[in-house]
Amino acid sequence: MKQSAIRANEFTDDPYPSRNGIPPAIIERKDPVVYGANSTASPLTQTQLEQYREQGFLVLENLFRDNEIAALQQEMVKLRTDPQLHNAEETITEAGNGEVRTIFRVHALSGVFSKLSADERLTGIARYLLDDQVYIHQSRLNYKPGFRGKEFYWHSDFETWHVEDGMPRMRALSMLITLTENYACNGSLMLIPQSHHQYVVCDGETPENHFKASLKKQEIGTPEDKFLEQLVNRGGIITATAKPGSVILFDCNLIHGSNSNITPHPRSNVFFVYNAISNAVTEPFCNRPPRPEYICTRRNIRPID
Amino acid sequence: MKQSAIRANEFTDDPYPSRNGIPPAIIERKDPVVYGANSTASPLTQTQLEQYREQGFLVLENLFRDNEIAALQQEMVKLRTDPQLHNAEETITEAGNGEVRTIFRVHALSGVFSKLSADERLTGIARYLLDDQVYIHQSRLNYKPGFRGKEFYWHSDFETWHVEDGMPRMRALSMLITLTENYACNGSLMLIPQSHHQYVVCDGETPENHFKASLKKQEIGTPEDKFLEQLVNRGGIITATAKPGSVILFDCNLIHGSNSNITPHPRSNVFFVYNAISNAVTEPFCNRPPRPEYICTRRNIRPID
Repeated sequence: MKQSAIRANEFTDDPYPSRNGIPPAIIERKDPVVYGANSTASPLTQTQLEQYREQGFLVLENLFRDNEIAALQQEMVKLRTDPQLHNAEETITEAGNGEVRTIFRVHALSGVFSKLSADERLTGIARYLLDDQVYIHQSRLNYKPGFRGKEFYWHSDFETWHVEDGMPRMRALSMLITLTENYACNGSLMLIPQSHHQYVVCDGETPENHFKASLKKQEIGTPEDKFLEQLVNRGGIITATAKPGSVILFDCNLIHGSNSNITPHPRSNVFFVYNAISNAVTEPFCNRPPRPEYICTRRNIRPID
Repeated sequence: MKQSAIRANEFTDDPYPSRNGIPPAIIERKDPVVYGANSTASPLTQTQLEQYREQGFLVLENLFRDNEIAALQQEMVKLRTDPQLHNAEETITEAGNGEVRTIFRVHALSGVFSKLSADERLTGIARYLLDDQVYIHQSRLNYKPGFRGKEFYWHSDFETWHVEDGMPRMRALSMLITLTENYACNGSLMLIPQSHHQYVVCDGETPENHFKASLKKQEIGTPEDKFLEQLVNRGGIITATAKPGSVILFDCNLIHGSNSNITPHPRSNVFFVYNAISNAVTEPFCNRPPRPEYICTRRNIRPID
């Protein structure tokens, strides 16, 4: 552990160190949030751009027509109940009861979600905000069952993508498209507004094959209590409630998490991570082999047309 | 198990059977919700009475002055950090990390909470709704910590009090006094409105010393998924959000639960169960020894003056 700390500090020039022996801390973000400079070409309004820049997220409603939403919901049910997919490496089941919780790489596994991931209404926003061509760094269909849906602890996606995938800089964003209603009470996404302006250096070291455990329950790469308190004292907590077919757009470094779901209402979303092509992944920063291709696009990086 | 089923059906006349071999079902409530007949003597308005009767709960704000609330909060901190109480049988700690989650019998352990439990602003409502003198069947200080507060699954309190404590009929109610802000996102109490009009017969049998497990995580005495779905389809789910010092009043048979709490905001409430003196507990309906006195008042039943 000592050796890796020395390596990270002295022999690399890592702008976003984490889990490498450096004491946990909050440091400043070194990258823009909105890369697009020409606001007349923006697919978002000036107010939306400002909210995204300052708060780190946007909820966009009515981007899709009802028949489009119905087709996405149908595809969600189809994939989740596909017996072949149940045993695929892309499929993660709930710790405890074996229910399908996540299917990765849906932008490749499903024609419907592939088309959605390349839809100009989404990619136009991603290209503008990142001011570059974009590719899908990760995609997944999330299904949080009713009654026994588990919480997911606070984290910055970028911290994981940087440390475990080798994503160099903060030039990526997530779009979550809601497929069921996201209520305040059914384990919906909670965001800490403004938390994307800093980077939380996390404690610990990345274990081998960490993704196998962290996809069920993240315990490493999570900010310390005192830092979460600081961030919540400043920005509060927003629960992103939305009707089906809404888009929740958030910066790669915005801290988020979710509570458990004991309600009968399952919660299902499809999730696309758009990364700037100029920010394509390099070697992981944790001295571990890269995560599998279905979690992190590495061999198949190509810009969306 | 077969034998106990026969006993419950043939040799007893239990209006609210549960966990005794009878198949899970929803049956009708056989008791009034509001016992008080004379509405001119009511400490609640006609609208409040109707809401309580129909929906099964009420949130009362501004019942206490700011200095009273501050004193209650101070007492809560004192009890929770009292090293002697930490090891008392009345104190239940969080599964996993040992943090204080509940202190029972606070109406006897603490002068401040004793006085509160006998406060006319609370007892006047309880006496009116139950149309009888009342006593404290159970009291507790609940503390759901921030960051790692666990969910508590759906249940009717009456089901447990009937089966495990021998409370004969539905003639009791709970008052929860909020000591910290109950937000929608910090594991606040969720209620299923109107669920108190039926009784959900639960599956299984009551294990020996069930209270030791059920106070940390309730798994027996919880309604089946399909019944919860039915009840939620009719009444929905209300998250009882409230400022400190509010009173959440609910019928003994209203189904409730709470999600986990990963936010930094702890959630603390004091909880009094008022039972009609004419409804004092008898022998448990589960062929097990009674739960301890600190969970269920049995030896010390006396009406509040």
